[in-house]
Amino acid sequence: MKALVFHGPDNLALEDKPKPAIIQATDAIVRITMTTICGTDLHILKGDVPTVTDGRILGHEGVGIIDEIGDDVIGFHKGDKVLISLITSCGRCNFCKKAMYSHCLNGGWQLGNSIDGTQAEYVRIPFADNGLYLLPPDVDDEAAVMLSCILPTGLECGTLKGQVKPGDIVAIVGAGPVGLAALLTAQLYSPAEIVMIDLDDYRLEVARSFGATQVVNSSDGKAAERVMALTQAAGVDVAIEAVGLSATFEICQAIIAPGGHIANVGVHGKSVEFHLERLWASNITLTTRLVDADSTPMLLRMVQSGRLDAKKLISHRFELSEILKAYNIFGNAAKEHALKVVINNVSAIE
Amino acid sequence: MKALVFHGPDNLALEDKPKPAIIQATDAIVRITMTTICGTDLHILKGDVPTVTDGRILGHEGVGIIDEIGDDVIGFHKGDKVLISLITSCGRCNFCKKAMYSHCLNGGWQLGNSIDGTQAEYVRIPFADNGLYLLPPDVDDEAAVMLSCILPTGLECGTLKGQVKPGDIVAIVGAGPVGLAALLTAQLYSPAEIVMIDLDDYRLEVARSFGATQVVNSSDGKAAERVMALTQAAGVDVAIEAVGLSATFEICQAIIAPGGHIANVGVHGKSVEFHLERLWASNITLTTRLVDADSTPMLLRMVQSGRLDAKKLISHRFELSEILKAYNIFGNAAKEHALKVVINNVSAIE
Amino acid sequence: MKALVFHGPDNLALEDKPKPAIIQATDAIVRITMTTICGTDLHILKGDVPTVTDGRILGHEGVGIIDEIGDDVIGFHKGDKVLISLITSCGRCNFCKKAMYSHCLNGGWQLGNSIDGTQAEYVRIPFADNGLYLLPPDVDDEAAVMLSCILPTGLECGTLKGQVKPGDIVAIVGAGPVGLAALLTAQLYSPAEIVMIDLDDYRLEVARSFGATQVVNSSDGKAAERVMALTQAAGVDVAIEAVGLSATFEICQAIIAPGGHIANVGVHGKSVEFHLERLWASNITLTTRLVDADSTPMLLRMVQSGRLDAKKLISHRFELSEILKAYNIFGNAAKEHALKVVINNVSAIE
Amino acid sequence: MKALVFHGPDNLALEDKPKPAIIQATDAIVRITMTTICGTDLHILKGDVPTVTDGRILGHEGVGIIDEIGDDVIGFHKGDKVLISLITSCGRCNFCKKAMYSHCLNGGWQLGNSIDGTQAEYVRIPFADNGLYLLPPDVDDEAAVMLSCILPTGLECGTLKGQVKPGDIVAIVGAGPVGLAALLTAQLYSPAEIVMIDLDDYRLEVARSFGATQVVNSSDGKAAERVMALTQAAGVDVAIEAVGLSATFEICQAIIAPGGHIANVGVHGKSVEFHLERLWASNITLTTRLVDADSTPMLLRMVQSGRLDAKKLISHRFELSEILKAYNIFGNAAKEHALKVVINNVSAIE
Repeated sequence: MKALVFHGPDNLALEDKPKPAIIQATDAIVRITMTTICGTDLHILKGDVPTVTDGRILGHEGVGIIDEIGDDVIGFHKGDKVLISLITSCGRCNFCKKAMYSHCLNGGWQLGNSIDGTQAEYVRIPFADNGLYLLPPDVDDEAAVMLSCILPTGLECGTLKGQVKPGDIVAIVGAGPVGLAALLTAQLYSPAEIVMIDLDDYRLEVARSFGATQVVNSSDGKAAERVMALTQAAGVDVAIEAVGLSATFEICQAIIAPGGHIANVGVHGKSVEFHLERLWASNITLTTRLVDADSTPMLLRMVQSGRLDAKKLISHRFELSEILKAYNIFGNAAKEHALKVVINNVSAIE
Repeated sequence: MKALVFHGPDNLALEDKPKPAIIQATDAIVRITMTTICGTDLHILKGDVPTVTDGRILGHEGVGIIDEIGDDVIGFHKGDKVLISLITSCGRCNFCKKAMYSHCLNGGWQLGNSIDGTQAEYVRIPFADNGLYLLPPDVDDEAAVMLSCILPTGLECGTLKGQVKPGDIVAIVGAGPVGLAALLTAQLYSPAEIVMIDLDDYRLEVARSFGATQVVNSSDGKAAERVMALTQAAGVDVAIEAVGLSATFEICQAIIAPGGHIANVGVHGKSVEFHLERLWASNITLTTRLVDADSTPMLLRMVQSGRLDAKKLISHRFELSEILKAYNIFGNAAKEHALKVVINNVSAIE
Repeated sequence: MKALVFHGPDNLALEDKPKPAIIQATDAIVRITMTTICGTDLHILKGDVPTVTDGRILGHEGVGIIDEIGDDVIGFHKGDKVLISLITSCGRCNFCKKAMYSHCLNGGWQLGNSIDGTQAEYVRIPFADNGLYLLPPDVDDEAAVMLSCILPTGLECGTLKGQVKPGDIVAIVGAGPVGLAALLTAQLYSPAEIVMIDLDDYRLEVARSFGATQVVNSSDGKAAERVMALTQAAGVDVAIEAVGLSATFEICQAIIAPGGHIANVGVHGKSVEFHLERLWASNITLTTRLVDADSTPMLLRMVQSGRLDAKKLISHRFELSEILKAYNIFGNAAKEHALKVVINNVSAIE
Repeated sequence: MKALVFHGPDNLALEDKPKPAIIQATDAIVRITMTTICGTDLHILKGDVPTVTDGRILGHEGVGIIDEIGDDVIGFHKGDKVLISLITSCGRCNFCKKAMYSHCLNGGWQLGNSIDGTQAEYVRIPFADNGLYLLPPDVDDEAAVMLSCILPTGLECGTLKGQVKPGDIVAIVGAGPVGLAALLTAQLYSPAEIVMIDLDDYRLEVARSFGATQVVNSSDGKAAERVMALTQAAGVDVAIEAVGLSATFEICQAIIAPGGHIANVGVHGKSVEFHLERLWASNITLTTRLVDADSTPMLLRMVQSGRLDAKKLISHRFELSEILKAYNIFGNAAKEHALKVVINNVSAIE
């Protein structure tokens, strides 16, 4: 089968690889009809993720059709249309029992990381009962593939950890795909205002069209000042950090109201300065979270009921044969005005 | 009346001051029968609290008898025995309506700070209905005065923000009065283990007698290592920071389990390094809080029912005439083996 | 001044009464610019509310302008435009401290009940700081007056107690004003489906235009059956009872899914049969609540931000001189296609 | 092997049955070392549980040693000492993902009900990874077997659903094993008072020795009156119904304070009268729950840390050969002063 293979930093190739086979009785093999590229894939490409080794097929997002099923899979059959979750979970360990599936002792984020992933014609899904979701016929592939990773991430790590509620003033720092996913999902909880902060005017324009009520370009270093002015110096109820840098975390600390929530979503490469000399007295709550993807069934219902337009996160569409080009576009997102790019596996559909 | 007056750094005097009078119809005047000294009073004494100015009567803890009552006070009468809360709250502003009384727009921590306090024969209590609690006859002064500040602080900022629950492993960094208050109140939620960490063996011994199941002397810099060994490398469910230093906050970050809670209680003078490069993926929750003292009624019921032995926090007893000596003992707590020191106003009792 | 006065069952009169005066220093006098009629006023009119005695001015909803202010009112000034909450609360008692303002020991629902109300040119508001909300200039009277009682009731007793959340299937039994208020506020939490159940096709049509995704006319006694069919026999996540009868409570019990929430909003005159022989094993939660009106500030922010169209609950508009006619229309709501009717006090506005 | 077999109402026999074998790769076979009898077993014996058919081996509680293990069991090995949970759960279905294991679509309460149970020398445990818990060497069988059903039931359905918290006044109606389990576990959350209500003075005496602060014999029909007197007419914060009768549910309704929680634990055979004509205005929460047994790991930690003395629920001890006698004693609990009776399988131990 065709598959996108990692061969060390800046070295990807679309190659022929053997089709995966069932290893455990709880596995399923899925024929991929659509996949997409995640910001994390770009980190892998740069060599930032040491668990990904030479020869690994990348990708942790996808939809497809079940091609083969292990003997102990209960909930699925060959031919079922399924959504693939980025998270592999055994459903049995202590972390799974706390719904911390991302920390599953027998799983976690494995696809396209420690095991072969979804940017291929077929993928093996361990613990299929816990890693797949049946796709209703009225949910199309493009909406569904946004539920593999990006929307659960924005929702769980941003909106839910930030405890967004009706009437809140929410600030989201970073208008990339994950920040936009936080923006879309925050609206499920009806905040009064959502202020989007980014360096890029195009992304801010997109954010506005996605429901941001205010946008702030932070390139002049005065974002925090401007948010405080917008809130009559009260600060925001929820600040969602969706970048992963010291500077963006600083903005969150500067604008959070007493009693507020800072929800970190960004992947940080370095420690940050935390202003406990001021915040010790502010009754704040700061959270971090890996996406557990336990919100996927809810998101699926929201998409199905027409209340969440997941597809609007997609800016570009490619075929699997063009995946290197897709990486190139996605890797130059600002210049290319790229949000999420999806990859169709045309051969799988026919 | 006699009162302890602040005259700038390291300059306290027991002086004659005029007896306070009702200013607002919601005020009460309380004749103090017992007060105590807080770690914050020592900070004031060093000049660390700029809101406290020359001439201020110190003290924000106390019990006493109502001497005079404003026309709009509903719940109290002259002669009532009362507990004084450190927090003044109007009960009407947005923060009060969220039970964030410490941030009350018309109050907050004022006693012995921006208005005269309780280390005196009499004190004026603004918004008396919200700042006083009727003392049942079966609760003695010594137990009650521990509920003015130290026990609500340990409970609210440590135990409650840390979400201590049955079966948890809890670590408390700092075995001073506030750490010990966290230790006593954490036990209301039945953790399986409480590990106490401090530099001082005497305090650790006290902690053990107060219910700590493990104690770790951190003077060799290996506290985190030792806690990880005690937990078979799993880390702790709750880490309570009760010191206010970079080094103690580091311990909390090093020992927190995925999904765990770090509750900051300590007053920090400087920013700290926050290890988001590791913790971004740990699903942790970090909280800060000023004590709001909304837990006081519950603590009073616990004391009254005999389930919380508040008095054991007290190590020394003085009369008001000896208050400068009491400050001296409390200011050399380690050497003097001092925990809380209480000050009786003998004249008030007679 | 003109005021609507109750003189026993079925006996209302628009009379001249003395203008109210400040009694306590925490009172305010408000010149009413708009009021409205509540279903509860109809119960009073029938003689069902024994606390309402001969001579009482009715009404617990209204907006107006502060005419006079007591000495201890902190947050308001003469001339301020304000929203009047149905709930009077002292902000000091145990119930107030638990945010159970409806059970305030010094207040609760008093206006138009145990003290004179808002269907008049002026009203005295006790504990004004806790019973009034400053109206921003961009919120008009008609939207605001819906926040005095009906929207907080639907939100607090229905939506919040029912714990409506994204993706839920919600059923609301009763499409009168309070059911419609539940319908509008449930949408703040993005349920996937809202099924509205009523006997009246017009009201169901209104419900659909307000956002119900399914409507069920229950006049054939098969509402429960139909809801179970709509949910593929799974039942609903939340059932909101907004009528107050045995039959409507039965529907809720018949359609609730395991793990679901039944939120009772209706005022019941009789006990009901509760099917514990079946529901003991269903992990359900059943709640009751008097409106506490602590959600009013949030609702005000939602109205102000344009995310809640409160005015659409209004079907008819009258002047104070026509208030008896307004009662007549509202008392024949089904026939008159009446939802909420508002009463303008034209003289107050000029 | 020896096994206790049900042959219709009032017809039990200790018989030779074939040793069970692995059916699914996720099964385990456990050699039982200790079991116990549940009140539910007595209901089965009376013929009240139609899912239990002729030939069924009874029992859903037990500890033992793993004798055989399916290929897909991850967490256990032959020879492991284990605790058996009454609940079988797949860990994959929608209910399992909501931690409603009792409603598992592929499990639930099956042992000694729809599949053979634990009152035998061996038992087959489906989905062994989710139905067994490794027993630490320092937890003895008698303590452990109390965690199969009775303690999780009292904790989850009573204490947790009732939201018992420090300072609360809790009433428990029914001092049988499940009421006593609620009593023991309620204390993990430090209520100020626990009032135990029962018809039997011996059981009330036991309750007092287990930590009840007040006991009320309800045989004169004045229990509610007496509880109201004990609480100065305020009522209780939490009422736990641990009987399953109309009369006991009435007591709960009569004594619940505004804002209180009624947690139903009892198995009800008939509907009850629910006083919505009064309680609609009381802001109460009423819950029902089947035990999900997700609290078992926490209870195990509490037992292991010495903070929960589970063994004191045991009044009688028998060998497997005496199990019919054990049923007889347990079936006449009041007369025999029986609480929980345990059954040792001596042959298994040797």
